[in-house]
This record gives sequence, C-alpha cells and structure tokens, in this order.
Amino acid sequence: MSLIVIKLGGTEGVDFAAAADDLAALAATGQRAVVVHGGSAEANALGEAVGVPPRFVTSPSGFTSRYTDRPTLEIFAAAVNGKVNTLLVEALQRRGVNAMGLSGLDGRLLQAKRKGSIRIVENGKRKILRGDYTGKIHTVNTALLGLLLDAGYLPVVAPLAVSDQGDALNVDADRAAAMLAAALQAETLLLLTAAPGLLRHFPDESSLITHLPPAQLDAALTFAQGRMKKKVLGAQEAIQGGVARVIIADGRVAHPIQNALAGQGTHIG
Amino acid sequence: MSLIVIKLGGTEGVDFAAAADDLAALAATGQRAVVVHGGSAEANALGEAVGVPPRFVTSPSGFTSRYTDRPTLEIFAAAVNGKVNTLLVEALQRRGVNAMGLSGLDGRLLQAKRKGSIRIVENGKRKILRGDYTGKIHTVNTALLGLLLDAGYLPVVAPLAVSDQGDALNVDADRAAAMLAAALQAETLLLLTAAPGLLRHFPDESSLITHLPPAQLDAALTFAQGRMKKKVLGAQEAIQGGVARVIIADGRVAHPIQNALAGQGTHIG
Repeated sequence: MSLIVIKLGGTEGVDFAAAADDLAALAATGQRAVVVHGGSAEANALGEAVGVPPRFVTSPSGFTSRYTDRPTLEIFAAAVNGKVNTLLVEALQRRGVNAMGLSGLDGRLLQAKRKGSIRIVENGKRKILRGDYTGKIHTVNTALLGLLLDAGYLPVVAPLAVSDQGDALNVDADRAAAMLAAALQAETLLLLTAAPGLLRHFPDESSLITHLPPAQLDAALTFAQGRMKKKVLGAQEAIQGGVARVIIADGRVAHPIQNALAGQGTHIG
Repeated sequence: MSLIVIKLGGTEGVDFAAAADDLAALAATGQRAVVVHGGSAEANALGEAVGVPPRFVTSPSGFTSRYTDRPTLEIFAAAVNGKVNTLLVEALQRRGVNAMGLSGLDGRLLQAKRKGSIRIVENGKRKILRGDYTGKIHTVNTALLGLLLDAGYLPVVAPLAVSDQGDALNVDADRAAAMLAAALQAETLLLLTAAPGLLRHFPDESSLITHLPPAQLDAALTFAQGRMKKKVLGAQEAIQGGVARVIIADGRVAHPIQNALAGQGTHIG
C-alpha cells in the first residue's frame, strides 16, 4: 500500500495544528503515513533557559548544524523527543488519530554512525570539534515501522538516532525523513517548511521552482540557502533511494498537506 | 510466558545504571519485562531552571502529588518523557537491550480519566484547584505491549497518560506500573525505591517488613510515609488486579533487581 513520509519543520513557523488537521483527514482515508518532526526552536529556547545556549557551526561545504556536546544532547532530547514529540502526539490523539511517538533510539529505529569529531569553518579558519553527538543514519528498522503501521498506528518520529555503540545522537530531521522514505520505499516524501518551496533566488518568493527534475538537484544544492540546502540534500538522497516524488512545500498555511499533494510547492521527481 | 513489571523511582537516588545492568542480564535469559520510570527530580530541576517551580499539594486523605497546570505538564513531558526516558533507553541500548521508549499517550497505551480539579488541604484548609492535567488510568492498551514484547522489544514507559479527549496527563508512576502489571497479568510487580522496603516505623530501617500478607495492606496505608503511601496503594491495586507478587525493594544498590527477586525488600502476596 502506498505510503507517505511527512516532515514538519521545527524552527520555522510551521503550523503543527494545521498539519495535524490534515493528518487526521489523511488517516481517515486509510492512507499510511509516517511523520518526522524537527524542534530546533524548542531546543534553542530550552538551552537558553537552562544556560546552555546553542552553538551552530558551518561545515567546509557550507552546511550549518548544531554542535551537540553531551549537555546539548540532553537538552535536545528533552525539548525535541520530550516536549515537541509529546505535544504533536497529543495534537493527533485529540483529533482521533492513534499516533505513536518514537525517536530513532526506540527499537533501534534509526541506526547511525557517530561522527565524534566534525570539521567546521569559523572566522575563515578550519577547525575540528570533538565530543560531538551527531551521526549519519545508515540503517532504518523498517520491520518495527511495518509492525506499527499494520496495527493501525501513526508513527511520529523525533530526530534522534542510536549509534552502533548505543549512544543517543542528534540527527538532521530532513535527512532522517529522507532515509525513512527510502527505506520504506515511500511513494512521496513531503518536507513542510516556512517557505513556499525551493526558491531560485532566495528570498524572492516569486522565484519559486514548481517542478525540478532530479538531474537538477546538484545545481539546486548550489543556490539553496541556509537550511534549504539540507532539504535539497534530503530530496536527493530520497530520490536516489527509490522514492518516486519529493515535495518541498509551505507549512505555514491552512491545509499544508492537502495543498502540497494538490500541486503546490516544489515537486521533484 | 511469565512477565515482570519493574518500576524505577525517579526522585530518590535509584541507580539507573545498576538497574540497566540487571535488566540486560534478565533480558539475556529471555525473561519478558516492562519498565516504568519516574522522573520527579528531573521535572523539579527543569521547572526551577525555566522559572516554573513545582508545586506539591496534599489531598484530604494525605496523598502528596504534583499540581500540574499546563506549563507544568509541558515541563513534565520534556523532563520525564524527553530526558529521563531517552537516557534510560540509551542506557539499555548501550547494554545491547533493544529498549523502546513510550509514554502512555503513544498508541493510547495508558488511558485515563482527567481529574480537571483536585481537592487539596493547605494550611489546614480544604481548597479546590482547577486546570489540573492529572488523571486516573482506567484502560491499558495490552495489545500494543503484546505486539512489542512478541517482537523482542523491552517497553520503557514514561508516566504520562492520554485522556478520553486526547489530552496529555501526568500520572503517578507507581500506580501506572500497578495498572500495567494487572492488565498484563504480570507474575511480579517490582517497585524499586530509595529505601530497603516498607518500614513499620519510618525512617528506622531496622523496622523493615520482609513479608506482608495482602490483608495487611490497608493497615500499611496508615503507617506508610510520604511517597511510600502510593507504593502501598499501587501494591494493593496490583494484587487486587491479579498480580501474584509485589516487591518493594532498594534501588540504590548494585544488582537491585537480582537482589529483590532473591528475597530482599518487602514481599507482598
């Protein structure tokens, strides 16, 4: 049966209530879905409140990510797997959807290779940071998701993974969604964000790209800005992994999922 | 197959690493288990850090509980379902146990009737507090636990429940463990705490009660102090629900589970 993987952006003003409304309508049609969420804004706010402000670093190839030492990992777990995941599951339960929150640690859902140290560029200089609890996902426990989907649950996945040694790791939610979509051979991967889609000339929203052939994803990596870079990378990984269609669409509006499936946003594939 | 439900106290200095060691040894024998944990200390610390300190209230019958308005509920979710649950699952994954973290919201695992308002006694006066997100569990989704146990996962349950309207609720972890044990017809319910067991004359540890017939549980409710009252109430609910044996034992020591199963602590049943 066809499956859709939907990623709700955490930082960017994505309307979780509107998405939950659409998820409930989708679930009522019998459509199988897996939801992945972010939670950067919550993690930042909690980190500030407890005196461990976030530190963002940029890789030599221009990708931005959160430096995740052990205190930051624990804050990330509290904010993202605790607050955001629980409240999203609650929003779905209130709408009659039998949601089931998981992180990638649970049942080894998302197994990743820990980076440990990362290369960054700071003030024009290359540096190596150690003690990083982030990772690159290599294996998805599709059997566990199949078990839950077959039993009628809607999996809601927080972006943590488990290392081969059992450590908790912070992983990028867009790429986690892409890995899940590929592993499950999803028909569609939908990335909801706080933009109308991929823009040719950021931040000019009139430069929205409505259709992008997969062959142009490499080029898109060069003009995508900020966090959109990771979405394009995720789209590429999903398409290469066999996902038929990736949509990057606006999550700030009413009916964000319905609109995206009806053609809005950037359709890739 | 026989099943054991094990509750790890949150507040009280219970050694999670020692419990995880024992759980790994138990899992290696093929013993089926469900773990329930607390997290009061983490919730208190997080609440203090973000400027929402905990408020504890006492019922007319002398039970103490956390007043849970909406901000407190969200802090509780972050601390207990986020941090404590994630780190306990991590501790088990590091030991090769395929743990799976859940709260009672996930898949409607623990369904409860929301109290909404609670009666308290403060400075000798009776009051009613409204806007409370706590509840009394009435239904356990045993099918979901069966699915996970049959597939080889160790469920690790955070003490949140879902109301009939889909709201997240804070529930007492001892009584949640008792409800789970009864619903699963567990052979044993083990409550690990920061005391050698039930004391006849608190805090005199030489007054440890090693065996308590279920008929004496009512009497025990009158001399149990503080949080031990809820453990006795949980023990009573479990026994009345068909659990063969309840053990209240010391969680501060090496091999807390092994020791309790070998006879230490207070054995009821």
